[in-house]
Amino acid sequence: GEEGARPVTVEILATGDEIVRGRSGDSNFARIAGELTDRGFEVLGGRTVGDDLDAVVEALRSAAARADAVVVTGGLGTTEDDLTREAAARLLGVPLVRHRFSVRRITTLWKRRGAPMPASNLRQAFLPRGAGFLHNAVGSAPGFRFRLGEALVFCLPGPPREMEAMLLGKVVPALRALAPRGARGRTLYVSCCGIPESAVGERLADLMARGRAVRVGTAASTGVVTVSVHGTGRACLMVPAVHREVLRRLGADAYAPDRTPPGESLAQTLLDLGLTVAAAESCTAGLVAARLTDLPGSSGAFLGGVAAYHDSVKVKALGVQRRILRSHGAVSGPVAEAMALGVRRLTGADLAVAVTGIAGPGGGSPDRPVGLVWFAVASGAGVRSCERRFTGDRAFIRGIAANTAIDLVRRSLGKGRRDRGTGHRPPSRGRLVTSGPRAASGPRSASSCPVV
Amino acid sequence: GEEGARPVTVEILATGDEIVRGRSGDSNFARIAGELTDRGFEVLGGRTVGDDLDAVVEALRSAAARADAVVVTGGLGTTEDDLTREAAARLLGVPLVRHRFSVRRITTLWKRRGAPMPASNLRQAFLPRGAGFLHNAVGSAPGFRFRLGEALVFCLPGPPREMEAMLLGKVVPALRALAPRGARGRTLYVSCCGIPESAVGERLADLMARGRAVRVGTAASTGVVTVSVHGTGRACLMVPAVHREVLRRLGADAYAPDRTPPGESLAQTLLDLGLTVAAAESCTAGLVAARLTDLPGSSGAFLGGVAAYHDSVKVKALGVQRRILRSHGAVSGPVAEAMALGVRRLTGADLAVAVTGIAGPGGGSPDRPVGLVWFAVASGAGVRSCERRFTGDRAFIRGIAANTAIDLVRRSLGKGRRDRGTGHRPPSRGRLVTSGPRAASGPRSASSCPVV
Repeated sequence: GEEGARPVTVEILATGDEIVRGRSGDSNFARIAGELTDRGFEVLGGRTVGDDLDAVVEALRSAAARADAVVVTGGLGTTEDDLTREAAARLLGVPLVRHRFSVRRITTLWKRRGAPMPASNLRQAFLPRGAGFLHNAVGSAPGFRFRLGEALVFCLPGPPREMEAMLLGKVVPALRALAPRGARGRTLYVSCCGIPESAVGERLADLMARGRAVRVGTAASTGVVTVSVHGTGRACLMVPAVHREVLRRLGADAYAPDRTPPGESLAQTLLDLGLTVAAAESCTAGLVAARLTDLPGSSGAFLGGVAAYHDSVKVKALGVQRRILRSHGAVSGPVAEAMALGVRRLTGADLAVAVTGIAGPGGGSPDRPVGLVWFAVASGAGVRSCERRFTGDRAFIRGIAANTAIDLVRRSLGKGRRDRGTGHRPPSRGRLVTSGPRAASGPRSASSCPVV
Repeated sequence: GEEGARPVTVEILATGDEIVRGRSGDSNFARIAGELTDRGFEVLGGRTVGDDLDAVVEALRSAAARADAVVVTGGLGTTEDDLTREAAARLLGVPLVRHRFSVRRITTLWKRRGAPMPASNLRQAFLPRGAGFLHNAVGSAPGFRFRLGEALVFCLPGPPREMEAMLLGKVVPALRALAPRGARGRTLYVSCCGIPESAVGERLADLMARGRAVRVGTAASTGVVTVSVHGTGRACLMVPAVHREVLRRLGADAYAPDRTPPGESLAQTLLDLGLTVAAAESCTAGLVAARLTDLPGSSGAFLGGVAAYHDSVKVKALGVQRRILRSHGAVSGPVAEAMALGVRRLTGADLAVAVTGIAGPGGGSPDRPVGLVWFAVASGAGVRSCERRFTGDRAFIRGIAANTAIDLVRRSLGKGRRDRGTGHRPPSRGRLVTSGPRAASGPRSASSCPVV
């Protein structure tokens, strides 16, 4: 029976000096962990080691002792530093042998390029004797699999696209064969923006208490709080109900019932609603536009944007009046509003969002500190602006400002437009405060403003 | 004596269910590994475990057995899932005790917010008895340090800004005290763009051969190849000479003698040269602008950009003629050139770059496949365009297209402008091919074109 069966456990091992020296290349771990968790397998943890044969051997051995399966990435390339094949051969006590199909494939790939092949490329065609071959549909380095003690070990190439094709095409089916469907874990997510992680935690405190069968957790990243709802075994059945309860409690602060980034989510919502958007960005300089267009097909919703970094571009491209820049400063509600109106006029979009702020580390002053950002959202009915104050380094402030701009557009969408097949939550109204002396003027008041 | 002394070795341990479930939060590892490697410490590897007390205890114990120091991140928060304190206490065989200063600090921080403090926040103020307190200047959760066997263990909060402040302020000085300067490793880097990793590998094959005292390695990411030159002990002294040799061999393909990203490097070069740039982007929709403005103070070099995603914006904002769009298609040399000229006109920048391509996954055709991207660079002397064909998913194609656009601007800068204090390598000329029927016309020929 499937009852009480535990999910298949996985350890992930990434190899490479470039990874242990930092800043590059460890995105494979997150990718593998995410894909396997989404499919109901339980990732126990990961390990990263440099290009050191003893270290790779030890890490492989201990990972195989902990989990049902080990996924290894990297170390299958052409250089002397690529040691995964040797580590596996040593652990298995077998020699490396030429894999004929791989020799032919590598030779053919080089012939197509029309370049002479350095002999070192054939290192890739050697596999531990008895290991199972895993075809690399994207690149030249084959992967392989073998059994180590009770564990299945899969060795995948390091380049992310090659890794991913092999993970989804070869590893996932093999892991599925290890366990019946009922034995898998299940995780659902809720994504929020515009609310601090601690406030999310307070709303969900009882659900997050330790010892519950369904585990609810939170993680925050540049303004986005992701709530996970996880269960294994029989608790899988309760995951959807807890997920619904999380969505209910977070209400308008939740923008997606999954892990979609805010830009992709808004682009999809706008596509569903048949609305278009444009962006005028100063301190974020293109980040809002780039995130809105991460979604394939987003050209139906995002018309274009202006990165108005220098004030002269705010004037020339967006029609912001020099007078307003002089009297209010570039980081102000009136300038944000003029930018939003300007980019809406330029592009003809239904909605426009503007961002202008001080990303730092320089440029701040006592009354306009680093982290102060003004936003505006414009529609056919008018324009509204609001300010936020963020704390962090330049990259953080730019990142959270971009996500906040996207979230303000979402929240500006009226009620009654929700859930047209996208599962998006109803945005709340009236979160934008109206700035400055024009607060009470006609087109900006909530009553005459169906969209903003 | 310092001769032959080995560098201080470090293991990194990241905890958190949200990390083992993937896609979020493992950037701490790369950040810590990079900072410590840059300071001459040797990162042996890293480990990631979920919020499971036994797993954290086991991981801490085994990391402490391998390295001189262990840096732990995460698990210091307010919820029941925050287990690092308990894991340390269990390993040390001591109870958790209230840390008075931290109780006062947490209480004060909440008072300032003017909100009632949930009692769970005081969990953060409990530390293993005898552990050393590490002040958190950025957030509320204190860190702590203790000795486990021969190893020093540092427990840092998970939020990246809090982690980083404590890493640089507390951990690095403590590691420095562990070893004399001569015992540290040294790593220098060279960054290249516009050249495949395999070509870099061939130019450096003898330097990369195994067994050499100075280790040379490569890592590639969306069009950027980073070469590392690493030595420990006495080999540190040879690192600068090997680094110079790598720079010499890579010539104009190297854009920085360190790990600066291409956008920040170009922005700095343009600031040094007193030149300004603008960007017109279709498929990258703001990525080029965002990367050029990652550098603080980049407003002196980057004036602005237009994300001309929809063709109507290419026409309205950039003045691209509908006739050209109709006859050549949006992804073509003539449109790229018109976009570059248009954004240069709009912003008044010295240089302008344009990108238009098919990022996919849809929208391709046999003669214009997904991955085809046209670029153009315009200056006062004219405009030139070229095409590239990339293979990968949407995010990869957009990322490599943005880096390529930035690199084409760099390469368009004339010789004789090099190395004005920035250490940037001389860009090569004439890498841009001239498109279409206007190839031979006056302003675009190399002889009359000092910049492009």
